[in-house]
Parts: sequence; C-alpha cells; structure tokens
Amino acid sequence: MEKTENIKLIALGGVGEVGKNMFVIEINSDIFIVDAGLMYPEGEMLGIDMVIPDITYLKENKERVKGIFLTHGHDENIGGVFYLLHNINVPIYGTKLTLALVGEKLKDNRMKQSILVKEIDNQTVLSFESTEVTFFKTNHSIPDSVGISFRTTMGSIVHTGDFKFDQSPYGESQMDLGKIAKIGEEGVLCLLSDSVNAEKPGYSGSEAIVGDEIADVMYNAEGRIIVAVFASNLVRIQQVINAAVKNNRKLAIVGKNMRNLLNLASSLGYIHIEEDLLLSVNEIEKYPKHEVAILTTSNHGDPLAVLSRMAKQSHKIVNVREGDTVLVAATPIPGHELVFSKTIDLLFRAGAHVVFGQRQIHVSGHGHQEELKLMLNLTKPKYFIPVHGEYKMQKAHARLAGQVGIEEKNIFLIEKGDVIEFKGNNVHSGAKVPSGNVLIDGLGIGDVGNIVLRDRRLLSQDGILIVVVTLDKQRKKIISGPEIITRGFVYVRESEELITKATEIVADIVDRSMQEYNIEWSALKLSMREALNQYLYEKTKRRPMILPIIMEI
Amino acid sequence: MEKTENIKLIALGGVGEVGKNMFVIEINSDIFIVDAGLMYPEGEMLGIDMVIPDITYLKENKERVKGIFLTHGHDENIGGVFYLLHNINVPIYGTKLTLALVGEKLKDNRMKQSILVKEIDNQTVLSFESTEVTFFKTNHSIPDSVGISFRTTMGSIVHTGDFKFDQSPYGESQMDLGKIAKIGEEGVLCLLSDSVNAEKPGYSGSEAIVGDEIADVMYNAEGRIIVAVFASNLVRIQQVINAAVKNNRKLAIVGKNMRNLLNLASSLGYIHIEEDLLLSVNEIEKYPKHEVAILTTSNHGDPLAVLSRMAKQSHKIVNVREGDTVLVAATPIPGHELVFSKTIDLLFRAGAHVVFGQRQIHVSGHGHQEELKLMLNLTKPKYFIPVHGEYKMQKAHARLAGQVGIEEKNIFLIEKGDVIEFKGNNVHSGAKVPSGNVLIDGLGIGDVGNIVLRDRRLLSQDGILIVVVTLDKQRKKIISGPEIITRGFVYVRESEELITKATEIVADIVDRSMQEYNIEWSALKLSMREALNQYLYEKTKRRPMILPIIMEI
Repeated sequence: MEKTENIKLIALGGVGEVGKNMFVIEINSDIFIVDAGLMYPEGEMLGIDMVIPDITYLKENKERVKGIFLTHGHDENIGGVFYLLHNINVPIYGTKLTLALVGEKLKDNRMKQSILVKEIDNQTVLSFESTEVTFFKTNHSIPDSVGISFRTTMGSIVHTGDFKFDQSPYGESQMDLGKIAKIGEEGVLCLLSDSVNAEKPGYSGSEAIVGDEIADVMYNAEGRIIVAVFASNLVRIQQVINAAVKNNRKLAIVGKNMRNLLNLASSLGYIHIEEDLLLSVNEIEKYPKHEVAILTTSNHGDPLAVLSRMAKQSHKIVNVREGDTVLVAATPIPGHELVFSKTIDLLFRAGAHVVFGQRQIHVSGHGHQEELKLMLNLTKPKYFIPVHGEYKMQKAHARLAGQVGIEEKNIFLIEKGDVIEFKGNNVHSGAKVPSGNVLIDGLGIGDVGNIVLRDRRLLSQDGILIVVVTLDKQRKKIISGPEIITRGFVYVRESEELITKATEIVADIVDRSMQEYNIEWSALKLSMREALNQYLYEKTKRRPMILPIIMEI
Repeated sequence: MEKTENIKLIALGGVGEVGKNMFVIEINSDIFIVDAGLMYPEGEMLGIDMVIPDITYLKENKERVKGIFLTHGHDENIGGVFYLLHNINVPIYGTKLTLALVGEKLKDNRMKQSILVKEIDNQTVLSFESTEVTFFKTNHSIPDSVGISFRTTMGSIVHTGDFKFDQSPYGESQMDLGKIAKIGEEGVLCLLSDSVNAEKPGYSGSEAIVGDEIADVMYNAEGRIIVAVFASNLVRIQQVINAAVKNNRKLAIVGKNMRNLLNLASSLGYIHIEEDLLLSVNEIEKYPKHEVAILTTSNHGDPLAVLSRMAKQSHKIVNVREGDTVLVAATPIPGHELVFSKTIDLLFRAGAHVVFGQRQIHVSGHGHQEELKLMLNLTKPKYFIPVHGEYKMQKAHARLAGQVGIEEKNIFLIEKGDVIEFKGNNVHSGAKVPSGNVLIDGLGIGDVGNIVLRDRRLLSQDGILIVVVTLDKQRKKIISGPEIITRGFVYVRESEELITKATEIVADIVDRSMQEYNIEWSALKLSMREALNQYLYEKTKRRPMILPIIMEI
C-alpha cells in the first residue's frame, strides 16, 4: 500500500436530507464511491418518479473511479446504481443479498452492458494501490448490511452505512463489535456515521421485543390477522413469519412483488420460511379464520396502498372484514402521516381491530443517541462527519460527538458538494464540486427541471385555458376561431357564458390587431393573455395557465 | 314551551373528519344549526381553497330554520357561515368574540344583505316554541367558547362544541362546571361531544404549564426570541405576551393580519396587552437582542409559511440569525408534518437555537380521555353521539362512553348525512339526507367537481400536449399545422426530435383521413390521441394529457 499523500471526502447525497446516499472517498488519485441511492420525490416534485444525486464530478473523473461499494440493499443506497453504471462502468462491491437486490433493479432498468459484480463479506480484504478495504457487519432492518473501512497510512476512513446496535437481533446479523473496536485501536482518521436518529435519546430497542409483540398480537386475535410491513424491512417480515409458525397460522402473502422478493431472499438463505407455511391468497377462505395470517407490504413510494384498497373493499381477493385484526408494524415516513392516519380510519370503518402505535410493534433500524455514541467510542476517530440525515440530525450527531470528546474543530457539518481535504497534518474545506438533485420521470433522467415543474404546479392549481385562432396574415383576416378549450379550470357545461364572453374578448383583440400595419405575433399573444387573465380572475378569482396559439396560413 | 313530539339529529359535517363542523338539531318542526365550519383542502384537492358542507337539506327546509348557533370562533366552526347566509338568511347567535370574528369573515366575503346577529353569553336564555336554548362556558384554545343545551320535554340535547377541562386556564374561561352538572341533573336525552383526542389517554394538561415553559425559554434565551404560534390559538398568544412582559422584552408582531386580529381581540377585552409593550418590526434593531421578542403566527392553510421565509432569509424585515432562539409553540396539523420538519431544519441551518417538541410548550385545546369521561359523567346522557373527529376517534369516544355506563345500543357512530330520530320512547336511524363536500375555488362554490379535479391531477403528473391543425374540409386539405405545444411534459429545448417525430405522426394520420369519403372529427381526434399516447409513452414512459384541436374552415 502506497503512502497516503492526500484524502478527499466528498458528499454527493445523503447529507442535509434522508435518502439518496452517495459518498465519495478519494485516496491519493483513486476514487471510491460508497452507495448510490435514490430518494422518493417530495410533495412539490409533481409527476417525478425518483430523485438521484448529480454525478457530474464522477463523470468528469471516471478514469480514476475504482468501484462502487454498497453498504446494504435499500433503495436509498442502491436505487441509483443503474444510473451510475450507465455513465461509469466500474465494479460493484456488495454482500450477497445486496448484490441480488441490485440485480433485480438492473433487470427492471434493462441494463445491457456487462457489469462487473464482486461479492464481499466481513472477511474480505480488497487491496488497491492506495488503500485496503475491509467490511464489518452491522445491524439494520435488512440483513447483510455492512460498514466499510478504507485503511490508509494516515489512518482509516470508516463509513458505518445505516446501523443500530441490537444486542439480540434475529439471525446472523450480530454486529462485528470486535472488528470495529480493532479498526478503532489501529487508528481512525475520520468516521462517517448514520445520523437519522441522532435527535432521539436512549437506545432504539431490539427486534427481539418486536418479535414477541407480533406473536402476542397474533395469539390474541380471534379471527384473521393481517400484518402490514414495509417491503424494505426484511427483518420485520421474518418476525411475522416466525409469529405465524408459533401460532399455527398459515401465511398468505399479498402482492406479486413481495412473493418474488421473499423467494429471492429465501433462496439465498436470508429469510427462513417453510414451503408448507404458505397459502395462496385464493385458499384463504378454505381455512378457519384463526388459522390464517395475511402479510401485506408497502413500498416507500406509496405506503399502505394495498392495505388501503383492502380496507375500502376494493382489493381483488383479500378485503378487510369485521373481526379481522390488522397490525401495522411500521411508522409513517415523513410526509406520509396523513395517508397512514386515513388508512387506519378506513380499517376501523371496515370493522377491524387495529393495532398501530400502541404497542412496541415497531423499532427503528437506525441507532439512537446512546448507540451513536457507542460507535464513536469504538472507532475513536480524530475527525468526524455526521452523514445520512437532515441538517438538524447532523447537528444533533455533532453534539453527541462533542460529548464523547471529539474536538469541535474536528467535526464537519457538511452539505452536498462539500469537500473535506486531508493533506499531511492539515485538514481544510476544498472547493465545492457540482451537486444537486437529478429528477427521474419515466425514462427521462434530469430533463425535468424547474420550468417543467413550475408548469406542472401551475397546471395543478387552476388548470389551463387554450385559445386557438387561425389567421390569414396576408389578407389580415381571421380564418377560423377563436376557439377556447379548458381543462382543470371550470366545469365547462356550467360555464358557457364565461367561455363565450372570453371568446368575444379574444376576437375583439385579434380584429383590432388586424388593422395594424405590422402584426407582431408575440405582442398579439401577450395582449390576448393579459386580457383573458384579467377577465377570468375578475369573474372566478382563478388564474389558469393561458396558452394562446396562432395558426398562420 | 310546547310538548316535544319528535327530535331529529342530523350530522352535515364534522363526523368522520376533523373540520367543517355542522350539526342540525330538529325539535318538532324547528331547525337549529350548530356551527357552520370549513375544512382546509387535503393533498388531492388540487387548487381548492376550502371545503364546506353540503347544505341541500337546509336549503330545502329553510323556512323552518330558526338560527345558527356558534360554539366558538375557529374557522372549523364559523368558516362556512357566509355561504350558509347566502342561501338562508337567519339570525346568528354567538358570544362577543365569536361574532366579531364572524364579522371579519363576512367583510372578507363582501356580504351585502343585512344580517341579524344576536350576542349571547352563559346567562342567555333563548325561548323558542319548541325549546329553550342555554349556553355554558367551555375551555378551548380560543376564548369565549361555549357549549349549547337545547331543553325539550323529552330531555336536553347538549352539544359541547370543542372543549377541554383546564383547571387553571388563563383568564375568564373557567368551565361552567355547576351549570353543566345542573343540565345533567335535569336530564339529558342526548349528548354530542368533541372526539378529537378520544384516543389519547389521561388529561390534556393545563395552559398554566405552557405559560411557565414559554416564560422559562424566554428567560434562558441570550439573544432574540422568536415565537411561532397558530393564529387561531389566541390563548397561546396571550401566554407569549405575558412571558414577554415577565422577561422585560418588547414584543414585535410580524404580519398585518395578526396585528389586526390582536387589535380586535384586545379592544373586546379578550387579549390583554399594554400598548407600550409593542414594537414595530422596523424598530427591532434599535433594541438590545435580549430585550426583544418576536411573535409570528401561521394559519391552517399554510402553517409556518412566515417562519420558513424568515429562516430562508427571504423575509422583508425580520430574518432568523445566529444566536436567535426560536420557539415553535404548536404541533403540526395532520398532513403538515413534513413542512414542519423542513422548517425546523431551515431554522437550524440559519443558526438558531430551536425549541420544538422537547418541552411542554404546547398542550391540546381538546380534552383527552379522562376529560371526555368527566363530561359524560357530568351530563349523564341517555343517548350519546361522538362528534368532531375521524371515525377512529368517534369509535374511541364510544368506547369511553361504554366505560362510564352508557348502553352500547344507545351510542350512535354516525357519518355525514345520518339522521337519528327520537319519537316517544323510540329512537331509530331515519333516511339519510344529502351530504358531502362542497369545494370552493376562488369565487366558485361547488363548481369544481370530480372532472375538474381529475384533470388537474392528470396535468400535475405529466403535463399536457396540445396538437392543433387547421383543415379545409371541403378541399380535404391541411391549411396549417399540425403544430404541437407542450407544458409540463418535457423540457422543450432538449426534446426537438421527439416533438418533430410526433408532429410527423399526426400529419400522417390527418393526411390519411383526408382521403376518406366522410371525415369524422371525433374519430380523427381519437386516432391522433391514441397514436401520440403510444409513441410518447414508448419514448418517455410518460402520459401527458393529449389534446387534439381541429380548426375547420
């Protein structure tokens, strides 16, 4: 391993926000990418499917990129891989389950080029000229999660990924405590650590408690039990399976995607489920109610969509009925609280007994304050960068780091595009690199920008009014029209008078302009727009988008 | 008072939902309306300003309506008064503050007709042929709130309005415990009671604690203190005033609407504020930082809008700076959690010390379970209808009623339009009356229905593509076009090829149709739409609204 001259740490995503995690670690001239995630759009991003980080910096330096290192298989960490690979063809490193999930995503996105995939585990040592990369197991809500250490002669750069310290997790996902401690003993230059729950005191709580609680609810349910879980929470899904086994209930899984995911995870050994436990949804009616459990999952984009259909009695096969017990083993994603609350209300209306919020049937997959301090104490970094979280979470995490003795000047509260540079014994903030949001809508990557979004927002508020007129410029004559068409503005059948009057206003303007010597289309359109805007606002107090179209012959 | 033959209780709003409270009490042939509120639109109601109840039933029976009885001055209770009065001109009964607030609303809505307004207080007795109406003081987050009792020979019908039992409220708003108990002793046929917090255990907590906490935060703030409160929470605003006085801080009020509201409330004696406490926002800089407090309010429609501008440094006069303490003394309204969270993040970024959620700086204005049971125990109704709340809250309230001994068959979980009819010793559900949402957009009341909303939703997702062509039907010839215009679909500058190809596709279709003997416009439009839809989806995976326009000469 060559001597380390220079290290740059660059955040491209996952700071100042929750989601689209992407961090760049540059050692000498080598570039290593940790995670390539997506974020689901927020309310104002109308029509957008997903958001990924701006990778201009990586494209400009693609010959130096050594690989993409994935910490775990959540969309927030792997959802942007396809886009990265379209631009930079480098190897992907990840654990078995993470790579399998990436594979599914790439299938969806019809990647054609050949991709170099390298499976790693917590024993793997990857040697590069500039660094030696090792991995340590972490606990999170999905199995096979890891943290990553980049060893250098200046000390290690450690990225935790998302983690909690669960002292009694389900299965094989016990944290590599010894290994993390050893990395700490050998000297950590800088720690990058998950901040999502940095504002929450105490410990996050163990999945073991959740397992018992789910089993208990199932035991007490007299009729069918329906459990709703986030699809990304494979650990929780295993708990539901275990609870069904314990209570002699058959398990029906609603949703084809979920069945595929379970098959995949189970074939790789990350989900343990006996074939004879499973029931097809069509067989549910054949069994006594107290012998049936139903698992329904939801994804980030549309949480509780399936459950809500089941509550409204509009699901094709399984609907919620009087006497069902519905257990929602998830907490709403920020911004989806109202959807959750409405769905819970629908479940009550359907006559279900609803278990949500009251019991400990959900614990977070992200460590709380005491766990974050434990990570800091194990790794004993000289420098610290809180990542994965909004600014307030990063700030809370910085405060925790101060409490365990890290000097304030050695803690960096960074935002997207920031560069922290280590050289010799010096550290400083370098010039920013390009960063931001790339919006994906259908097949379009980054083509939907502010103008398109602004138009969608305008259209969503008061709709559109289109006025078309065909003119003979030579003879200065209206050939056809003006005709007005509206969508999303007023209910047309009840607004005949309004539209007639608006048409007259436009006809007047066009007639008058025909008498001018030089007819300027743009000026004519502007006066049409202004006159209509004024008239319509006066009559309706609405401001539809007004689109004048002049057809010339 | 004549003998009561028949009582009908009809919910027009405020059941199965939080907001637009409106309840109809029919005694013999007289109709009494309790509250006429609005609801702010939810996410999917694009472009809508507010929602009010369907009052078809009242319009059809307007000659029998004796009056509108208002419990308190919140928008959820008075926001629909203007609309009701447009259709039914009857007296409005309310307390002094409530009527003053209604007056402000009616000014905004430019009511022209003369309105009969009758001020009541807790001593008022209103005699009608069928009933005697009395009022009792309640505690809520706005002063001058009352509950209403309609005495009949079959017992009283009691509507609580919104309430909590605060044993040490600020000012004069001590509950009329004795009076409520007396109404209970005399016999209550049916109680209609506030369900908003029926799922929350224990007691809601006293405003007195909040007052101390706010004062304490102000005392400990080294620099300026900025307090954000909901404008509707006049009680909380008084606490902020008191805390400023106690800490020798001058108070600047941001927002003209808020200053007007405070002037109104203070001139009526409901807010106590000394003139020399106040500071204009332009004078803030003249005072030492620790002598300044700033009050900013937000309304339901757009919570934290002002505070968010102040955090982004885009407010005209007052912006949040390093060293400021910002106290958010409110909890997010369902559906606005993300907005709250984003604003808090912006405040941290601006360098403020933010106090939100950690301390008891907010208590609800709605009673929790023990308070709801206390109301049931004081009034001892034979029948019970939980109102003001989503179904799950009504259901939780029904469970509480069961716990204090009301028979299950005497508890009615009703939804909008339901009628509960009492006749002799019988009670039964009558035929439903028309009910639902009336959407208000600008000046339009109820004209925006499902079609307009569906169009707005479509437009908001992938925008619109308009294709115009001018045809000479006689000569079977394209005169002008086809021309394609898009908005909110793609970024036009980068999509020239797509648009050119789409234009060709349309031109082909039109050309071919010209060769037919009979050209059917609708069939031609359909084939244009289908061809474009298919082509665009294939190329972009987006589905803009496609609008073919044929101009004929």
